[in-house]
Parts: sequence; structure tokens; C-alpha cells
Amino acid sequence: DPKLKVFTCNANRQLAQEIADHIGVPLGNSEAVRFSDGECQIKLNESVRGCDVFVIQPTSAPVNEHLMELLVMVDALKRASAKSINVVIPYYGYARQDRKARARDPITAKLVANLIETAGAHRVITMDLHATQIQGFFDIPVDHLLGVPILGKYFAEKGLNDIVVVSPDHGGVTRARRLAERLEAPIAIIDKRRPEPNVAEVMNIVGNIDGKTAIIIDDIIDTAGTITLAASALIEAGARDVYACCTHPVLSGPAIERIANSKISELVVTNSIPLTQDQLIDKIKVLSVAPIIGEAIIRVHEELSVSKLFD
Amino acid sequence: DPKLKVFTCNANRQLAQEIADHIGVPLGNSEAVRFSDGECQIKLNESVRGCDVFVIQPTSAPVNEHLMELLVMVDALKRASAKSINVVIPYYGYARQDRKARARDPITAKLVANLIETAGAHRVITMDLHATQIQGFFDIPVDHLLGVPILGKYFAEKGLNDIVVVSPDHGGVTRARRLAERLEAPIAIIDKRRPEPNVAEVMNIVGNIDGKTAIIIDDIIDTAGTITLAASALIEAGARDVYACCTHPVLSGPAIERIANSKISELVVTNSIPLTQDQLIDKIKVLSVAPIIGEAIIRVHEELSVSKLFD
Ligand SMILES: Nc1ncnc2c1ncn2[C@@H]1O[C@H](COP(=O)(O)O)[C@@H](O)[C@H]1O
Ligand SMILES: Nc1ncnc2c1ncn2[C@@H]1O[C@H](COP(=O)(O)O)[C@@H](O)[C@H]1O
Repeated sequence: DPKLKVFTCNANRQLAQEIADHIGVPLGNSEAVRFSDGECQIKLNESVRGCDVFVIQPTSAPVNEHLMELLVMVDALKRASAKSINVVIPYYGYARQDRKARARDPITAKLVANLIETAGAHRVITMDLHATQIQGFFDIPVDHLLGVPILGKYFAEKGLNDIVVVSPDHGGVTRARRLAERLEAPIAIIDKRRPEPNVAEVMNIVGNIDGKTAIIIDDIIDTAGTITLAASALIEAGARDVYACCTHPVLSGPAIERIANSKISELVVTNSIPLTQDQLIDKIKVLSVAPIIGEAIIRVHEELSVSKLFD
Repeated sequence: DPKLKVFTCNANRQLAQEIADHIGVPLGNSEAVRFSDGECQIKLNESVRGCDVFVIQPTSAPVNEHLMELLVMVDALKRASAKSINVVIPYYGYARQDRKARARDPITAKLVANLIETAGAHRVITMDLHATQIQGFFDIPVDHLLGVPILGKYFAEKGLNDIVVVSPDHGGVTRARRLAERLEAPIAIIDKRRPEPNVAEVMNIVGNIDGKTAIIIDDIIDTAGTITLAASALIEAGARDVYACCTHPVLSGPAIERIANSKISELVVTNSIPLTQDQLIDKIKVLSVAPIIGEAIIRVHEELSVSKLFD
């Protein structure tokens, strides 16, 4: 049987260690450092010849640094005769550049897929892609894990009453419905509309939220503008309490300040992206994706179906 | 005839403008900006349909940012139906990771070549590759320009007497000989040897430098350790004066301080990499590669041989 080895670069060493611990293997001995001029240097300090290698590296900020580390790592593994190179990208950077929204736009999510394949990856394991179509940007197998089971379990155990799960936009309804099923709750949808050009957006709420505990769910929370405005709209429209959750806490720019000052009682996120000390405010609860990714790796290594994880 | 257009990203806008001016075209209207989370966004604000497009972008520090900007730009140009996409990379980052120097090393210079081709480039124009073998890492045409004619012209016009051109190592002898031919001067070579492990390197000088004006030439000056130690060794061994020159002023870490405090009278570099205000000390003279790159672009567009440039 080819040996399973887990490596990482710098984007989320702690998650990589947790995943290795879950699987019961030591984290592979490697370094991702920088030369004096900022060029990235990958050192593989142990043999990978004939091994099934899994590289844990979310392409979170600084995205270009982390992406390049991953690509160089894959190149090193390929030249060091790894049997299979499986890249585990819990957060897939550039996922929002997934189509030509304007004339002459690049489609960077597709470019990144091509770069990863060109470097030599044989398989991708990722979580909650911003657009599930990105799976089709790859010509190698993609296992797509979901954050909903982890988030749902947390809220179920919390024992909240009279819940309504809220999608902050039409694109997120499927995700909201998945969480609602787990919590045996109804859903509501926030319908953003701009009545006239250059007039502020109006948030209409479709569904009954009166007196209820709202849980807003999104895939990514970036600057937190959408989610904090949605929370205000829900409270104004009569919700008793507002929770929010997402898989990927990008939390850039004004995000933390907005969340701190918002009507959100608690924001539940996963560790697909590591939070800095400054971002770890009391209101934010972090759940680990290590068990689900660890299980997926074990299944892929044993050549079993990953979708069984969601049964 | 397809129209020639020149675009750039952020690595060296001034050089791109000089090149466009040399050719006599306006610089293409585009932007390379960042989203709040640091993801790179390329905006092409004019049509490129059916055009021969040249993108000027050295992959100098921050290399991963500049490389990604270039790749996304190429992706955008490809999807916007450019007829040909010609990437002009005056300084090719990662060129020093060109072979497996140690077991399990990546070969990042080759990876980068693959990434550029995968993004959709049809041709590369570059200058003074650290290893000329990197041309063979590409499966698309590579035009390889030299800095020697520019550096040689400057020193010839300076009217120095009794010159010896010095290569700081064995790998640079061909380059030194090219400069020496232009200056009708002899060459000398610095022969670095480590007499025993963990003992400092000794610099032996092969060739006659006594009482002469030495001009050290290298492709890249990075931390400036080699070149400043070489200058001291040359003065100690009897050189009257020491000049230094290179095509690519990487100048990272302690470079500027070392050069300021060194025996080097003048360091002559090109603008393949832009210098910051702090790096532009009196001792450093910058020559422009815009004319030679501009001519190369005109020739490529007219489908003529670029090697004629060096006659
Ligand atoms: N990193 C990013 N930060 C903010 N907006 C982005 C980012 N990447 C892409 N976008 C924009 O987000 C939009 C796509 O988001 P969505 O409509 O939610 O799929 C497009 O208009 C993109 O230009
Ligand atoms: N960006 C860099 N800065 C310093 N050294 C590097 C860099 N990239 C590669 N190297 C090292 O430089 C050596 C190759 O340089 P050379 O012998 O001059 O071709 C190899 O040992 C590399 O590991």
C-alpha cells in the first residue's frame, strides 16, 4: 500500500497539524521560506517517493504568496517522485472571479485551476466553493466538502428555539435550505433591490421572521457589509435575535469592526482560514474542519467515496 | 496588419511608458488593482480584439504579486480575443531556481515557464536570463536580449583607460568576455574557493589586474555580497579603481548599505527592475533598456529577427 503523507506550506499550519493528528500521521517535514528578495523556497526534508501525498494549503490572503507556495510545493513533490499529489485547498482563493461579469474580465478561478493542474496536482479536495461550477474548471477529480454539517451540528447543540435560516441573497438559497433541514427550521431570503440607479439598496425579507431567532448563512464573509446590513434589516423587521455563520472567514478591511458593532449576537465560522489574534473577538466562534477533511483524506487514500461523509 | 498594443501591470510602469514612447504608441488603458482581501483584479479598459499585444512586466519583487498580475493579464487578453499575446519580462524572477541543486528541490524557473504558457502567452521577450537554458523551459518562442551592449556603450563613452573586465565567478565568463570585446580590454576571473568546510571563502584573482581599472560584470546583483567582496579583493590585489555593472539590480536586504560602504566607485545597472527612491544612491547609475526592448517589439511585430539587434 502506498504510504499516506500530509504536508503543508504556510497558509494554515495549525489546521494541517490538526488534520495530521486526526489521521494519525506526523506532519511531513518541509519548510516554505523566502530568499532575501522574497522568492519562495520549498524544502522537502523527507522522502516522498511512491507516497500518496496530501498538501494542506488554503489560498487565503496573502493569496498570491500562498498560491505560489502551493504550486512550488507540487512541483517539488512531482520531481521527488510522489505517487499521487492531492492538494487540499479548504478555502479556494479567486473563487469570486468565476465568470466574465464585465467585458474583457479575466476568469481567474479557471486560471488558478489550470495553474494547479500544470504544476502537477492529481486531485483537489476543497470546501464550499463560491460557485460549484468551479469543480468543472478542473480536469482532475475534485472532492467538494461542505461546511453545513459542522455549522448545523453546532447550532443544533446550542438548543435555540424558533429558528429561521436566512440566505443573504438568492445565490445562497441551496446552502440555507441545507442548514434549515438539519435544524428542522424554515428559511427566509433577503431580496436586495436597487429601486433606481444611484439610490441605496433596499433589503426586503421574503419569509416569516417575526419573533424568531434568525441564523444567516453565507459561504464567505469578506468585508462583512452584506451580513451586518442583513442583521440590521432582520432586527428591524422583527427578528428576536440574529446569529450568522459562514465556512470561510475572509474578514478583510472593516469586517471585524463592522461585526463588533453589528446586531449579530454570535458569528460562527470554520478554521478553513486562520484568524489572527486581532480577528478573534469574543463574538466569533471558530469550529474546526479538521475532522471532515481528515476523514475525506482517509477515504480518498482508501479509494472510497467522499460523498458518504454527508450521509 | 494587426495593430500593435503595449500594456503593463504594476511592476515597472515607467519602463512600459518609455517603451511605448519609443515605439510611438500610447500605453494601453488597463489597471491592475487589488480587492479588499488582496486578490488581484485586472481591468482592460480598451479592446484588444485582433491585436498583437505586448505586456511589459518584469517579475521582480514582490515576485508572486507581479507574476500573478501577469498571468491574470494574459488570461484577460486571451478571453478578450487578442491575436497574439507577447509577454515582455525584462527581469525573469525565480531564474536562480533552475535546477535540482539539492535532493527534492523544485525547479521553479521551469514551473514559471509552464504557468506563463498555461495562461496563454504566445511568445516571451526577456533579458539576461540567469541561465540561458531557461529558454528551453518554454515551448513557445523566446527572444533573449542582452544588457551588455547598453552597459558597454556607457563604459566606452566614459573613456576609462587601462580597463580589465572581471567576472565574479566562472559562470559569468561569457558575459565578461562579451563586455571585454566591446571595450577592447582583457578579462580576469575571480576564483572563489573554500579551502576547508566551515572556513571563509578565499577569492583568488585569475588574470592581470595590477594598476588597472576593473569593471566587474554580473547578471544580477541581489544582496551585493559577492560584488562588494570582489571589489575589496581587487583593490587589495592592486587594481587602481573598481566599477561594477549588472543588468538586473535586485538589491535586496543589505545591498544598498554594502554598496555605499564598498570600494566600488560606480555601479551601473539597467531599469529592468525599477529602483526605489531609497535605492537611488549617488553611486548608482541607471541606464534604460527601453530602446532595445522597443526595437525588439517592433521587429517581432514586423516578424523580423531580433538577433540582428546585436550586430
Ligand atoms: N476578492 C474579491 N473581493 C471582492 N469582490 C470580488 C472579489 N473577486 C471577485 N469579486 C467580484 O465579485 C463579483 C462576484 O461575486 P458574486 O456575485 O457573489 O459571485 C464579481 O463582480 C467580481 O468582480
Ligand atoms: N531568490 C534567490 N535568492 C538567493 N539564492 C537563490 C534564489 N533563488 C535560488 N537561489 C539559490 O541560488 C543557487 C543558484 O545560483 P547560481 O549558482 O548562481 O546559479 C541555488 O543554490 C539556489 O538555491
